[in-house]
Amino acid sequence: MAYELYYWPTIQGRGEFVRLALEAAGAPYIDVARGAANAGQGVPAMQRELRSRTQTQPPFAPPFLKDGDVLIGQTAAILNHIAPPLKLVARNHRMQVWTQQIQLTIADMVTEAHDTHHPIDSGLFYVEQKAEALRRAKGFCSTRMPKYLQWFESIIVRNPGGSRHLVGGRLSYADLSLFQVVEGLRYAFPKAAQQALAGTPAVVQLHQRVAALPKVAAYLRSERRIAFNEQGIFRRYPELDLAG
Amino acid sequence: MAYELYYWPTIQGRGEFVRLALEAAGAPYIDVARGAANAGQGVPAMQRELRSRTQTQPPFAPPFLKDGDVLIGQTAAILNHIAPPLKLVARNHRMQVWTQQIQLTIADMVTEAHDTHHPIDSGLFYVEQKAEALRRAKGFCSTRMPKYLQWFESIIVRNPGGSRHLVGGRLSYADLSLFQVVEGLRYAFPKAAQQALAGTPAVVQLHQRVAALPKVAAYLRSERRIAFNEQGIFRRYPELDLAG
Repeated sequence: MAYELYYWPTIQGRGEFVRLALEAAGAPYIDVARGAANAGQGVPAMQRELRSRTQTQPPFAPPFLKDGDVLIGQTAAILNHIAPPLKLVARNHRMQVWTQQIQLTIADMVTEAHDTHHPIDSGLFYVEQKAEALRRAKGFCSTRMPKYLQWFESIIVRNPGGSRHLVGGRLSYADLSLFQVVEGLRYAFPKAAQQALAGTPAVVQLHQRVAALPKVAAYLRSERRIAFNEQGIFRRYPELDLAG
Repeated sequence: MAYELYYWPTIQGRGEFVRLALEAAGAPYIDVARGAANAGQGVPAMQRELRSRTQTQPPFAPPFLKDGDVLIGQTAAILNHIAPPLKLVARNHRMQVWTQQIQLTIADMVTEAHDTHHPIDSGLFYVEQKAEALRRAKGFCSTRMPKYLQWFESIIVRNPGGSRHLVGGRLSYADLSLFQVVEGLRYAFPKAAQQALAGTPAVVQLHQRVAALPKVAAYLRSERRIAFNEQGIFRRYPELDLAG
């Protein structure tokens, strides 16, 4: 049975981490909110799930995933759930915990990247918090982005399974998520990302290897891959690209 | 063998979610950074772990936990790891996933609560971002805090195992974490929290029940419980307590 992914249909956002895992594994899935409303899909179908008053395990926000009668929210929890059957994580419990720990750290970085353009209120427009965004982006570009990237670099380099992956000797969902973070940083902060990535060659190489995986490459070329834009998490506002 | 918890010794912070779980379960643990440096503990011991160049699974930041030869960072991942042996989560896999999903949503709320006083840069002082903090706290108090609390309320009320807990019919680490969130909100935002909690009676009752658990009550009275202060996540800056 196909997974049902529920996420905003016009942005990559946090849903993209789930899309990438499903695509890389070749798993059948329906991107529900991108379907037609008259076919019972589209954003109304997502809103129905979010507003249900009977769902006993309601998600707080998109993305969420239906796997049969299981409904799961929170990106990292979704990935942790689908990774074993999709063979996107080691079978070993300890390695699963480690992969999840990396994913949670990626999630923290993604929140900080988002907050560069929305430091005050996600309910307001960027222009309503642009002055604050300039200040927040400065710290992100000069300190936080390099700090996260250097942590990823160190764990790739120290990986006992080899420096082709974050965990062990094969692809995990954490590799796919790090690929997406590099994509996003390069889109949103081309100059600052280039500067930071110059110090993390293993991250750059991992990104290249993921991009070249046949299923990932096919997905990136397809219409299923939504282009980056200025409604998502990673937005190109040149004034926020504060290389040191 | 006792768990070793590593966290900043002068604040509750994110470490408190782990402390509460260990205390509620009566588990032996060493709060390493609160120990004496001349006994090989204290903050230097924590820094040694963070700066290790050989650790293959290095934590990104405190809190982190040593369980024998396993080292785990990320609060939610730590709780997910220790909860089964401490009997702070159901044995059922699906309920474990749901408990983790709740914890991740609590973590998101905690980050937003933190960012009310540090919306720009966690490396700067509050006074250096006070104007921005006033704006961010407004949205948190009026919109985000009530939205999160109402979500917790709805899942308590709908819990098929009864409305005494978030998940199933017995105490889980998510209950302990929600207790801590209510404590923190009441400390940092006494007026706004009172207003929001007036609409979430099941959350208030759950908080009371957790506080009355003998092991939790004993912990809260002990010197092991660090008082709230203005270095932690929940800080009492009256100007940020923006009740509607």
